[in-house]
Order: sequence, then C-alpha cells, then structure tokens
Amino acid sequence: MRKIINDPVHGFITIDDELIYSIISHPYYQRLRRIKQMALAYLVYPGAVHTRLHHSLGALHLMQKAIEELRHKGTSISTEESQAARIAILLHDIGHGPFSHALEHTLVDVHHEDLSLLIMQKLNEEYNGQLQLAIDIFTGTYERTFLHQLVSSQLDVDRLDYLARDSFFTGVSEGVVGYERILKMLTVYNGELVVEEKGIHSIEKFLISRRFMYWQVYLHKTVLSSELMLVTILKRAKLLAQNQVALFGTPAMQFFLQHQLSLKDFQHDQNCLQQFLLLDDNDVISCIKVWMTHSDKVLSDLCQRLNNRHLFKVKFLTDETASEILDWKRQVQQSAHLSDEDIPYYFMQDATASNTYNEGDEQINILFKNGDVKTISSVDGTLITAGLLVPVKKHYICYLRN
Amino acid sequence: MRKIINDPVHGFITIDDELIYSIISHPYYQRLRRIKQMALAYLVYPGAVHTRLHHSLGALHLMQKAIEELRHKGTSISTEESQAARIAILLHDIGHGPFSHALEHTLVDVHHEDLSLLIMQKLNEEYNGQLQLAIDIFTGTYERTFLHQLVSSQLDVDRLDYLARDSFFTGVSEGVVGYERILKMLTVYNGELVVEEKGIHSIEKFLISRRFMYWQVYLHKTVLSSELMLVTILKRAKLLAQNQVALFGTPAMQFFLQHQLSLKDFQHDQNCLQQFLLLDDNDVISCIKVWMTHSDKVLSDLCQRLNNRHLFKVKFLTDETASEILDWKRQVQQSAHLSDEDIPYYFMQDATASNTYNEGDEQINILFKNGDVKTISSVDGTLITAGLLVPVKKHYICYLRN
Amino acid sequence: MRKIINDPVHGFITIDDELIYSIISHPYYQRLRRIKQMALAYLVYPGAVHTRLHHSLGALHLMQKAIEELRHKGTSISTEESQAARIAILLHDIGHGPFSHALEHTLVDVHHEDLSLLIMQKLNEEYNGQLQLAIDIFTGTYERTFLHQLVSSQLDVDRLDYLARDSFFTGVSEGVVGYERILKMLTVYNGELVVEEKGIHSIEKFLISRRFMYWQVYLHKTVLSSELMLVTILKRAKLLAQNQVALFGTPAMQFFLQHQLSLKDFQHDQNCLQQFLLLDDNDVISCIKVWMTHSDKVLSDLCQRLNNRHLFKVKFLTDETASEILDWKRQVQQSAHLSDEDIPYYFMQDATASNTYNEGDEQINILFKNGDVKTISSVDGTLITAGLLVPVKKHYICYLRN
Amino acid sequence: MRKIINDPVHGFITIDDELIYSIISHPYYQRLRRIKQMALAYLVYPGAVHTRLHHSLGALHLMQKAIEELRHKGTSISTEESQAARIAILLHDIGHGPFSHALEHTLVDVHHEDLSLLIMQKLNEEYNGQLQLAIDIFTGTYERTFLHQLVSSQLDVDRLDYLARDSFFTGVSEGVVGYERILKMLTVYNGELVVEEKGIHSIEKFLISRRFMYWQVYLHKTVLSSELMLVTILKRAKLLAQNQVALFGTPAMQFFLQHQLSLKDFQHDQNCLQQFLLLDDNDVISCIKVWMTHSDKVLSDLCQRLNNRHLFKVKFLTDETASEILDWKRQVQQSAHLSDEDIPYYFMQDATASNTYNEGDEQINILFKNGDVKTISSVDGTLITAGLLVPVKKHYICYLRN
Repeated sequence: MRKIINDPVHGFITIDDELIYSIISHPYYQRLRRIKQMALAYLVYPGAVHTRLHHSLGALHLMQKAIEELRHKGTSISTEESQAARIAILLHDIGHGPFSHALEHTLVDVHHEDLSLLIMQKLNEEYNGQLQLAIDIFTGTYERTFLHQLVSSQLDVDRLDYLARDSFFTGVSEGVVGYERILKMLTVYNGELVVEEKGIHSIEKFLISRRFMYWQVYLHKTVLSSELMLVTILKRAKLLAQNQVALFGTPAMQFFLQHQLSLKDFQHDQNCLQQFLLLDDNDVISCIKVWMTHSDKVLSDLCQRLNNRHLFKVKFLTDETASEILDWKRQVQQSAHLSDEDIPYYFMQDATASNTYNEGDEQINILFKNGDVKTISSVDGTLITAGLLVPVKKHYICYLRN
Repeated sequence: MRKIINDPVHGFITIDDELIYSIISHPYYQRLRRIKQMALAYLVYPGAVHTRLHHSLGALHLMQKAIEELRHKGTSISTEESQAARIAILLHDIGHGPFSHALEHTLVDVHHEDLSLLIMQKLNEEYNGQLQLAIDIFTGTYERTFLHQLVSSQLDVDRLDYLARDSFFTGVSEGVVGYERILKMLTVYNGELVVEEKGIHSIEKFLISRRFMYWQVYLHKTVLSSELMLVTILKRAKLLAQNQVALFGTPAMQFFLQHQLSLKDFQHDQNCLQQFLLLDDNDVISCIKVWMTHSDKVLSDLCQRLNNRHLFKVKFLTDETASEILDWKRQVQQSAHLSDEDIPYYFMQDATASNTYNEGDEQINILFKNGDVKTISSVDGTLITAGLLVPVKKHYICYLRN
Repeated sequence: MRKIINDPVHGFITIDDELIYSIISHPYYQRLRRIKQMALAYLVYPGAVHTRLHHSLGALHLMQKAIEELRHKGTSISTEESQAARIAILLHDIGHGPFSHALEHTLVDVHHEDLSLLIMQKLNEEYNGQLQLAIDIFTGTYERTFLHQLVSSQLDVDRLDYLARDSFFTGVSEGVVGYERILKMLTVYNGELVVEEKGIHSIEKFLISRRFMYWQVYLHKTVLSSELMLVTILKRAKLLAQNQVALFGTPAMQFFLQHQLSLKDFQHDQNCLQQFLLLDDNDVISCIKVWMTHSDKVLSDLCQRLNNRHLFKVKFLTDETASEILDWKRQVQQSAHLSDEDIPYYFMQDATASNTYNEGDEQINILFKNGDVKTISSVDGTLITAGLLVPVKKHYICYLRN
Repeated sequence: MRKIINDPVHGFITIDDELIYSIISHPYYQRLRRIKQMALAYLVYPGAVHTRLHHSLGALHLMQKAIEELRHKGTSISTEESQAARIAILLHDIGHGPFSHALEHTLVDVHHEDLSLLIMQKLNEEYNGQLQLAIDIFTGTYERTFLHQLVSSQLDVDRLDYLARDSFFTGVSEGVVGYERILKMLTVYNGELVVEEKGIHSIEKFLISRRFMYWQVYLHKTVLSSELMLVTILKRAKLLAQNQVALFGTPAMQFFLQHQLSLKDFQHDQNCLQQFLLLDDNDVISCIKVWMTHSDKVLSDLCQRLNNRHLFKVKFLTDETASEILDWKRQVQQSAHLSDEDIPYYFMQDATASNTYNEGDEQINILFKNGDVKTISSVDGTLITAGLLVPVKKHYICYLRN
C-alpha cells in the first residue's frame, strides 16, 4: 500500500504501512483535523489555521527521514521499531483538545499528554496490542532511548516540524528552521541521540528560531490576550453551568461544562474519554457565537468581544509594584463602570514563559570528532552558555482598554 | 494609520486607510475568518484550511499592487477610486456562507453574489454612504470599466489571489501563478483592462494553471464526493425539520433549517441577513457531529461517514447508458440492503464543470504593439484557440462503496 | 562514504558511492564548474549563471529519487544498474564546451553528445572498465530500456532538472515544474518507462512549462541576439586565424582557432580531446575582452558590443518577402555605413525552434488503470492532441540597430 | 522609462530612472557581471556563482523599498536624494576586482572602497556632475546621515541583500534574513537611521544569521583554503614576473603582474584604472589554467591543485604552541619532500575574523516607544549584550595534506 499526501511544508508525505494508514483513518485521529495547531493565533496571523492532524503528519514524515538517516549511519533499527516510532510520533498529540492551553485550565483539567497515553492505550486494545511498542517508546520505557528522544526531547521531530510549519503558515520567515540539515547531523552514540560537532551552529540557529517564534508569535500580546479571554469565557460558562443556568452547547460541551473531571475520572469512566473525543474547535466557537446573546451580561459581553476580535490589551510588567497594578485595575474598573464582582473578568494578571532551552530537561548532546560527548550548554562560545536561551518568564496584565 | 499583516503568500500586506481598516475590523468581515476558502478540500489536502478572510486580504493586496502599476503607466486613478476599488475587492466574497457551494443548493438558496451586494449595502448605510463608489465598481455601473474588471473579470485580482493561495496551501506547485508578472503586464486602453502583447504566454500559463487546479484540486473526486455528501446531509436535515423532527442546531442553523428563503426574503426581512451573518463552518460541523447519533438512520449514518472521512466513491461517466447506470444503482442498493426510499441518499448522479476560460463571459483582451486589441481567443497559436480551455462538463455518479 | 552538497533547488544532494564521488572529483568533471548551463542568458536574467556541474549533480539527485520510486513499486534494479544509471546521467553533458550552441557551429564542429561518449570512454579506460554499463545505458544498448529512458527521453531526469533549475535561477516562476509529483507517477511497464494515468495533467503541465521557458527564456530575443553575435565573433576570429592574423588566446583557444576538426580527428588524435578539456567560458570571455582592441575593425567592434551588452536587435519574421528583408538589410547597411564585405556581420538571418514535444522522437507513454498503454499524443482531450506542443520554428533577423 | 529585471531573490526589480538605467548600461557596471560575489565559495556551494552585478541590483531594489517605507512614515526625501541614494548603493561595490579579497593582498594592493570612489568620480565626470550627491552620500559628507547609513552601516541594504542572496544561492536556509520585516521597522529619528523597538528580535535574528553565514559559509575551511591557495598562486606569479620569467596572461593581468601599484598610482595615472576595469574572474581563471603547465614547478603544481579542486587542508588553531606548529610544518615538508624554499607555499598560517557586530563601528540604534534611543548593545537581554556577537578571530594553518 502507498498513499501520498501533499504537504506544502515538506513536499510529499508518503504512507506505506497498512497499520499506520489504518490509524490515520481512525476517527480519533481524523478528529485532529478539527483542532487548530496554534489555537487563536490566527487572530494575529491569518494563515495560522493549520491543524494538529497536519502537524502530526509532518512529524511522521520527519521521523521517517530521521530513521533513514540513522540507518544510513549504521544504527540498526528493526522494521518493528521503525513502525512503532512512527506511530508514537503520529499519536503524540492525540490527547489535545480544542484550544488546548485554554481548555486544560478550565473545561478539562487534565494534561494532554496523559490523555494522549489513554487514547493510545484504547487504540492498542482495538488493534490487539499492535501499538504496545509505540506506547513504550512514547513513555520512554523502551530500552533504546534514542527512539524516545526522537519523539520527545529538546530536539525531537515534533519541535522540528512545528517550528517549520508554524513559520510557514504564519509567514514569519525568521522562524524557518534548517530541519533538513539538523536531521543530517543526528546520530546515535551509546544508545542516545546526539548531534555531530559540525551541527552546533545549526542547533544554535534552531534554538534562536524557537526563541524568535516565542516572542514574535506564541507569546504575541494579542495571542495572549485572546487566549486569556477564552479562558475567562470558559470559566464564566462553567460557573453558570454549576449554578444551573441554561447554556447552549453541543452534548460534549454540556458534559464538560457540567462535570469537573480529573485524570482518574478519565481512567475509570469510559464515557469521559468518549465525550472528549467528540470535542473540537467547532464546539467551542459555536458556543461562543451563541453565547453572544446570553442573558448573563459578562458572558455575552466577553463572547462578543472575542468573536468580533475586540480584544483586551496586554501589558508586560517590568518593575511595577503591587499597588501600582492595583491602581491600574481601579482605573479600568471606574472607566468601564464595572462592579467588584465583574472586574476579575476585565482585568487579569498572569505570567507566561518561553521555553527555548531548558537545562533542567533532557539536554542536547554534541558528539565531538574526538569521541567526546558534551551537553550543548557546556560547550564554550555558544549562545546557550551565555545564559540567554534559558526559559524567560514574563508577567503581564490583560485588561479592557477604554 | 498603518497596519501590517503577515501573509505567507504575498509577504506583508499593508493597510494604510482608516475606512478600509474599519471595515476589516467589522464583525461582518471578521466572520470570514470562520469560513474556509476551499470548503471540504482539506479532506484531501490537509493544508487547505485557509479562510475567506485571508483570501480577500490577499486580493486587497494585489489590488493595491495593480493600482500602483496602472498609475505608473499613466492611468490616473483618484484616491477615492483607489479606496473604492480596494473596498470592492475586500468585500467581493462577503456574501459567502459556510461550504458555500453545498449551502446554496440546500440551506440558503440564494446566490452568494447577491448576498455580497446586500451586505455591502447594509455596510454602506452604517458608513453613511462611504461605500457607494465601491458598490458601483462591484456592480459594474461605474463608468470606468477597468476598475470593475480588476474586481471581476477573467483576469481579476480575485482569481490571481485564489489560484496563488490555493496552490500555496494545498502544496500543489503546478497551480503556481506568476501573478507578479501578470500584474506588470496589465494596462488600461480605451478605459478597458488589457494585457500587453508580451504577456500572452503568462496569460496562457495562468489559464493552464487554473485548468490544472480544476482537475487536480477543485474537482478532485474525493472533494466532489465529500461536498455531495454534505449536500445530501443538509437536504435530509431540512426534510426532517420540515417534518417537525427535532434536530440539534445553533439558532442560526435552526433558522435556515426551518425556513425556505428566497432573495426577496433577504431583501425584505432584516432578520434573514442577521441570521445568515451568524452562520459559519463551525455551525455546520458541530451539527454534523451531533447528528451522528440522531435517531434518523439516514442522517446519522451519512454524518458518521462524512465526519470520519469514510467517503462515497465518485466515478466519472463517459459513455455509460442510462440503463447501465440503473444497473449500477441496483447493485449498490442490493449489496447495502437499502430501501427504495433511502437509495437516493447513497447513489447520486451529478455533473460538474471546469471554467478555465469562458468565451461567453467577458474576454481577456490583448493589446498589441501596433495598437490592435484582440481577444485572446482570436490570437492564433495560443492554447485557447485550440478549443482546450473551454469549460468542460463532467457527469459522475457518487455512491456508497461496498 | 557520504558527502552532502547544498543545492538551493533540491535541498541536499547526497553522494554515497565511492566511484561516483571519484568521478565527480575528476578534473574532467570539475571543468563543468566553469561552463554556464545557460550560456549568455545571464545577459537577460542576471541570476542565470548556474553551471553545468550544478545541473548534472541535480540530475544525479533526481535519478536517485527515480530509482528509489521504481524500486518501491516493485521494479528490481540491481546495485550495479543503479550505480551505472547514476554515472550515465552524471556524465551525460560532460562533452559540452563553453557556450555550446555557439561553439558547435564555429570553433568545434562536433556534436556535444559525441564528445560526451568519447570522454566517457576515456574515463572508462582510466577506471578499468567500471563505466561500461553506464556507457551502455547512455547509448541505449543496454537491454533494460527504461534506464536509458531515465537518462534520455522526452521525460528524462535531465529535462526535469534543467527546467526546475533554470526556472529557479532565472526567477521565471512560470517554468516551475512539479518534478516531485512526476517522479512519483513514473513506473516501468514491459521494460519501458511509463507514466501512470493520474499523472497526465502533470505531464501536460510539464510540457507547458517547457513551452513557456522556450518562448520566455531560451528563445528570448536578447538571448538569441547575444548568441548569434558570439557565433559571428568566433567565425570572424577563425577566419582571421586562417589568414594568419595574430590573435590573443589561451593555448586551447589558439588550438581550435587554427584547426578545423571533425569527430574523426577527435577519435584519432588524443590531443584534440585534451585541448577541448581545457576550454571553458573563461577562455572565450577573456579573448573577447582582449579582442576589443584588435586591429581588425569588425572583430573589435563586435567584441566591444557583446562585452558591453550593446546587442543587436532581433525581429521575428512572419510573412516578410525575401525582397523586403533585402530592403531592410540595405537600410541597415546604409545607416551604419557598412561595406558589402562587412554587412554579413551586422545583418544576419537565422531560424530557431522550440522542441516542446516531438512526436517523431520517442514518445511519452501513459499507462491506464485498465492496463492499456497509449502515447500521450493519442490521448483525447490533452493539449498535445491539439497540435500545439509540436516544435515551432521561427525565422528571424538579427541586426545592428541604428 | 521602465525596465523590469527578474530576480529570483526579490521577484522583480524595476528600474524607472533614465540616469540609473544609463549607469547600469555602462561598461564599468556591466563588468560586475563577470565577477562572482562569493569568489571561490562555489567550490563548496555549487550554486554560489551569482555576480556582484546581481547583488548590487538587489541592493538597489532594497534601497527603493527602504525609501518608500521612510517616506510613508513621514520622512521627506526629495527626488534628487532618492536618485542619489540609489546610485550610491548601485555603485558601492564598483571598485571590486575579481576574487577581491585575494587580489587586494597580491595583484592590486588597494582597498576596493577607494577604487569604488575613484570610479564613481570618473563616472561623475562623464555624467557632468550628476553623480555628485551620490558620491557625497557614499562618503558620508552629505548632511542627512540616514542616507549614508542606508548605504553603509551595520544595517545597510548592502548587508540585507547579500545575506539574503548568499543564503539563496548557497541553499543555506539558516542564513535567510527577514529583510522585508527589517525594512518595515526602519525609521529616521533626529536625522539618523533607527530601528523601532518592536524590531529588536528581527535585528537579533539578522545578526545571528550573519554569524551563521560566517561560520558555515564565508569562513568555511574549504573556502579559506581555496582563497589562500589563490593568494599564494598570485604571489608566486608576481614574484616570477618581477624576475622577468615569462607568464601567460591577458594584457590586464600582465599589467598588474608587472607593476606594484598604490592608491596614489591609481589617482595619478589614468591607465591604472583603465587596466583595472578590464580585469575580471575570467582573466584570473584563464591564467591559472594555462599556468598548470608552466615550467615553474611551484606555480604549475599549485594551479593544478586549485583548478582541479585538490585543495589544502585547513585546521583552526586553539592552544597549539609555536613549536607544535613548527613540528607540523616539518612533518608536511618531509612527507611531501619539499625544499625550505618551497615550504611556505605548502604550509601557511593565517587568521580570519567574523564581523557579526562590531561595537567599535557605527552602532545599530533602537528607538523605544517612549522616545528613548539606545544602541542595541546597551539593551538588556539581547544576544549582543552577552558578548557573543563581537568579532571572533580565528587562527588557522593551511597545508598540503599527505
């Protein structure tokens, strides 16, 4: 069997494995067509409407390339391992809900990685255990570490694809990653994924591109604002639902508005996952549109603003004192004639962090020609040693502009 | 004022006109963010999820370029005309509903161009008549014909943008159009938009690219199948609604399921347009998902199939006789155990046409160095004179595969 | 072994065969770095300075892709055959001299394909017969025809690469070819290279792109003019040399100015080929620059004009009569005060032909799903059956503009 | 008047100024067609054969864009200033000889910027003073500093074009610069060119791309090696010429082999510049090819090696002691049986420096929203403050590999 999919980012993606094609055709996977990779970022970058399905197909393609490269360099990878690594990357994001970041803090308070694992296990049952090795690679329990590292590490094909893809669809050329070159620099050493010495500059460039994308795109003020507004809307809706106020919603939305669920609930009650797998961007957006005329003033007002792109202002904090912020809040409250009860929906404080390179996490390792392996943060003269690529946390306020 | 929008297709789009920016910010226009330019084509080309908003912004950009070029060549275009032409192209698709082609044959039986005009008129009232010239250009009543031709003709900036954009997002490189070169070849002669002689090959290339996109993308069998399935679903839902069967739906969906409206209704009853302006892709997809569990077997079955991408098969007819087709239909009916009542939902016959170049419509005119103007279809030795670029109608059947 | 070469057209080209890398490193092959693929076309398209070496590396890359594809589809291709096919394409242009078209009509009156074969045979000796299979594939004597067809046919990887490359470097986007898709549509049937039915539109698009490149680039009037001027210069220089007039020149140039050689001479006298292999663009351009001050007025004048890009005018003839052309010639002669002896250097008549698709040559064959194989020119409804893609011959005059 | 030039990097370049078009048509400018922008880098990156003419046309295009942007933002720039700034950038590299870096250390010991000025002055005479303002802008004597800064500063359109262009033609995607965005961030403040605050990340990205290009391309070991070999060849040839040994050469090459000239000589003797303007890549490469059979063993050996791409090895020095290097040298001498006289031609030591951002030079200034202007190196948290973007000097040896 052989299916070819057009991808404007990578050219053509070839699927030549029956099991993989069957998983792609599964409703659980097809659901990812209806979830945007970059959530509400399209409110700033109109091209950023690509889906999680598209991203994971792209990551699958890069996994295929990476395996080819590693085999070329003498690392033996069996047909089973190759298939399993590809399934693992294909399904690594299967647990994402719509507007995942916003959702995880409101409607479905479970981490998407946990849900990915649950769904993979469910599929594994359906496929009579054929996904077991993929699951072991995904969870990192399989002995050959580099396979897990290809799926999830500082330099996995997930990141390589999403940076390339997000740059492509936003049109932010600064985020372009030389992923082809990076793939060619990967090799396996003592069972670990490492980068050849001559690839150091490419890695730096990759990390700088990530950093750029964080500040220019992922943490763009307008993106932060719209996502925080969505969080606020969902919180308000949930509160109303708890108070038995009637709310329009698809059955799946109703389910999550009315139940506060933990991972345990998902593990023990099949219906939770079943409902979750029916949820996508369309449910959320449809509700917001209908809620624009809800009798609850806060809910309808916020929904109108988000739907019509009349967004709150975001201001990054530098050295403002708590009392200055309080003053600010009061000013917003007064000029918009907001009650004490409502002001939390119109003046919010939050923090966000870029995660360009997290030393605490697994490291990127460089293999030198003389056989030495060093973490990139211990190589002199790189941008990382300068301490600039560490996560940066930014505090900000988000509020109704007058 | 000056806003810059990232567009992966054209680079940066600059908005430097207050009125235009205000229209872009209007909820009616923002609604186009929620309507995919290529409807269900993303079921074949996963990247084809770009929106009508994105396309019309791109067309606006090309209009700006075209006006610059024409002015450079000595055609005087006033500030008012320039603004009006840009507004006309910005709003040329404002009347599109979700999955427009499918919708126009089922839920909302009114042509989208008529709705575009209605919405433009409504906006014109809101803006105190500032859109009148734009409307005149759009409808072709303004005396300077070339401005209308830039908005709507065989070689308008609408086509230039959507071919470029659809190629880009599908990844079908064969559809790439040298729109920059074409813009540079445009000029105005006797008040009409014409192409300089040396641009003939670029025009041919443009028409060939359109032809290619028709066969490879717009009329791809899987795209035809999914759109016909959507038509069928909406027809069934409408039938059920007429028979007072309860159906999940957003209020806007409910409205159109329950009323059969003509253009006159839209013209006389404000509420029709108001409801229409609340409708987008999310309403349709949300309904289809919920209807997957509807008690009506035909509806739920079709919705499950479309949602999970288990699509009907399409076969183009060549010289099959009516009785052969009937045999085929019977075979489908038998193997799927379908009643006489249900078979029309599982075996359909339809026709589709490519419209590469329609001689009957307005022509592309070529200006020769000696001052002659000829329609491209009268120029010897071009691909058009060979009769290959005329519309081609294809009949096909679309049916449940066994 | 494994070498990676950056190619802006195809991304990365990988060389993983010792013999192939050795041939690439050979001075005969390295010489192609100094010969521009598109001769003087850079006088119109400043980016068109890419070399024959770059093109043949690109063709090598596409050959590797094609072999991968065919193997994937079940055609067995041995390691030896794969290596040989790659060597054949790598060396298919090795016999090109500088400004090949101009040179073959003046300095070196031998067809470049004959020289390619001679050089391949010479290399075969050096490599102890390791190139024999490559030579057999190149000449078409090897029994598996499809391998020869990949090297040289209407749809060979040579054409696929040069169209893509020439489009890229000229910036003429209309020439862009979907070569990736075409490669995926190739298959072997009864030992012959055929295209799967669903590839018909891609083939059409490919032929249209070639047609476009012919008219827009390869046969651009300014390109024709500069090449004809170069022919004229070389003829004049050769005439002077035959008359024992001293001329500056590198030893290789001197050799070819002073000898009129046939293929036989090359076959029997090693020195001919040896001198030829020392000749490249630099020799020709250096001479032209020095000849700008030669005492022969015709030579120096033509060299100044070409070097400084003061080119003759080209006019395509339509239905001009012989006497009209004669009048034209007289007019040029009078206004430029040219003698009867000199006028042939300032008024020339020639013809040129596009070769988009030559039915007489080997055909492109389409494999239909039902197993039929038809030549594309016998498939109804294609652009080829309309008779538009046949070679077109154009007559033109090229003359000193007043 | 209006000429359009295809540029694969920027799309179309429009020339709409008679004087500028006349300068472009001048033989002095056309000569830049015959000088490669990246000298011998094509020995590593086969696509890097673009010319200085192509680069300066690209820089002209970006200057046009920059002027448009600044005018849009309210900076008044007169027609004369616009024309002059464009001429200044068009001619900024006119003084480059072939393989400029190598040449300036051997054949023509004068800095190319001094020659650019001389040639501009010569053209100014020919054009009756019409280039005076361009010259004043070029030299920085014109009062409106920002115009000079567009031509020559840390963020001039020269750098923007060459980074974009060199990335494009080498295929090194990591060097891609978001020049469109940078142009949009430029503004004039107190007569100086500054970057708007929101452009900081783009500037960082630009500097990182330059850094990347330095290490990956401009200072690639093989490039360093080939250029040092060329320096050595030219030195040897010059030595031979001084000793009256006969050498093949075009008249221009002969002139520079036989004379050791200073800037003063160029200023006082017209013939020096005249000869220089006849020199280009072709002269140098033709000589090297002919010298491959020269009786001087060192010259012929080095020429064969360079021409056939049998290059010396380059090794960057870290903490090697002088005596270790001496040992190395001896080893090379012994294994290659070289005399004490010849060893300097086969074992060389040199240094090279990247110039990503030179604080000593003019700075990049950032304009903050509050009206502050700070140099980028004083902005906290940027990559520059980390001291990583300062020039890095690397010492290396370059020697015959065994």
